[in-house]
Amino acid sequence: MSPNPSLHPDAAVDLARRVAQSMFERDTASQGLGIRIEDIGPGTARLSMVVRGDMLNGHHICHGGFMFTLADSAFAFACNSRNEATVAAGCSIEFLRPVQLGETLTAVAQERVLSGRTGIYDITVVDQSGQAVAVFRGKSARIKGEVLPAT
Amino acid sequence: MSPNPSLHPDAAVDLARRVAQSMFERDTASQGLGIRIEDIGPGTARLSMVVRGDMLNGHHICHGGFMFTLADSAFAFACNSRNEATVAAGCSIEFLRPVQLGETLTAVAQERVLSGRTGIYDITVVDQSGQAVAVFRGKSARIKGEVLPAT
Amino acid sequence: MSPNPSLHPDAAVDLARRVAQSMFERDTASQGLGIRIEDIGPGTARLSMVVRGDMLNGHHICHGGFMFTLADSAFAFACNSRNEATVAAGCSIEFLRPVQLGETLTAVAQERVLSGRTGIYDITVVDQSGQAVAVFRGKSARIKGEVLPAT
Amino acid sequence: MSPNPSLHPDAAVDLARRVAQSMFERDTASQGLGIRIEDIGPGTARLSMVVRGDMLNGHHICHGGFMFTLADSAFAFACNSRNEATVAAGCSIEFLRPVQLGETLTAVAQERVLSGRTGIYDITVVDQSGQAVAVFRGKSARIKGEVLPAT
Repeated sequence: MSPNPSLHPDAAVDLARRVAQSMFERDTASQGLGIRIEDIGPGTARLSMVVRGDMLNGHHICHGGFMFTLADSAFAFACNSRNEATVAAGCSIEFLRPVQLGETLTAVAQERVLSGRTGIYDITVVDQSGQAVAVFRGKSARIKGEVLPAT
Repeated sequence: MSPNPSLHPDAAVDLARRVAQSMFERDTASQGLGIRIEDIGPGTARLSMVVRGDMLNGHHICHGGFMFTLADSAFAFACNSRNEATVAAGCSIEFLRPVQLGETLTAVAQERVLSGRTGIYDITVVDQSGQAVAVFRGKSARIKGEVLPAT
Repeated sequence: MSPNPSLHPDAAVDLARRVAQSMFERDTASQGLGIRIEDIGPGTARLSMVVRGDMLNGHHICHGGFMFTLADSAFAFACNSRNEATVAAGCSIEFLRPVQLGETLTAVAQERVLSGRTGIYDITVVDQSGQAVAVFRGKSARIKGEVLPAT
Repeated sequence: MSPNPSLHPDAAVDLARRVAQSMFERDTASQGLGIRIEDIGPGTARLSMVVRGDMLNGHHICHGGFMFTLADSAFAFACNSRNEATVAAGCSIEFLRPVQLGETLTAVAQERVLSGRTGIYDITVVDQSGQAVAVFRGKSARIKGEVLPAT
């Protein structure tokens, strides 16, 4: 399914990491939320975030929007990992349990299907005990251009 | 469909506003994003937000997570507007066009269906020219309790 | 939002009906399920279906797939109603209550947003008493060509 | 995650098969569409279906409703496989490529998450060459009772 079928696995991982690094430097949203890149590969990403006091909703639990944003960032790093500019067309999220202040969330993104310019990515958000707190599915659309600036 | 069928329309609007005010005071997430409540009624909410420099993603457009968060807050105010504690079970969002730094987004939430403890809410996010930039659908689950503290 | 902004409302309704008629004649699936076209307009459609004995699932209630199919057909007639060939990219459905053998279901489709080649359509499926039994959202993609054969 | 943690793997497979057999005997919808059960296990199901002449839509390709119905049946067998009565709360499907008359479709269902009474299941629909033609996600809700009649 890779658009770079001839790329050596090590080179594909290296490319994915360089793309993620380049995107993250411009991604003021993910930076501002304290999101950390834990791991990156071709079609995959693992990000973490600690739930802060400014992420709580009116029920005083983690606002679903921030759980979504963490998952959406993992989705973005995974679907751009082959250095082909790709955007989110649509996403869905199911919330499984409430998350409290101070918990550490980790979003794990995996590519399910690549079909033409469309991709389907599954992201699971787990808490520090490994329990799933949300599942997210993203549909991506490849656009023109690359992520890394031409050298 | 109202759980308070005997409530006078004016009283229902007043209740919805008091619930929203109470929720917003605890909602550090919405406050921190500069979200403003524009209008509230039974089953409806209209919120606005200006896209700031710390809301941009790696493509340097508004991170989808913040568009989602604005819509999700409107969903929360709408589905709690009858003072019955209600949480999001799941949500989907379709992104229709990119949003730039400095644009003002408005999310308009409307109740579509109430059926038992489940509700379906539709939220449209528009830019300052009124064009839709995203559509969001939320499924809510009523839990025990009320939003306003007993007096 | 109409791609034929100059079309007189009556002409737009007439076109929508002719497109639906033409599609329905080839639509062996909808015909086989006994689906009836109740009303058609630009961006809208209303279809009905009686739940038959061969539409029941292992719990002996109407199989969700047939409720989906009715809604999906209404979606198809609505999104092709301007004679521009359009296909479903993705759909979601929420099931609100079980449906029994012999009930009459009606699916009402309405266009929510048209944005470039993408459209968002909302379909509500109601029973004979008017109660919502499912809500469906479809995302459409316009492709090349028209529905009606050139004359 | 199993509700029967003490069940031997062989016994769990045997139970899943007996439940599927019992459901299938009452499932006139799946029978009428010529759906075949290829494999069943705890939390999993694999079903196949040949696209017939009465499954085509107005564009003369397989009606999305029948692709959905095949996936939805696989979802149902997977989420009831532990003999705890379970229904679909909501589903989403993404259509990746058109399917022609006479093609054989296979739906593979896998449990992603079980959390309380809620489950998330992923179903991929592939054609005879193994290419994905649709991806489906189902959210299940466990209700009271068992599937197999008490003996």
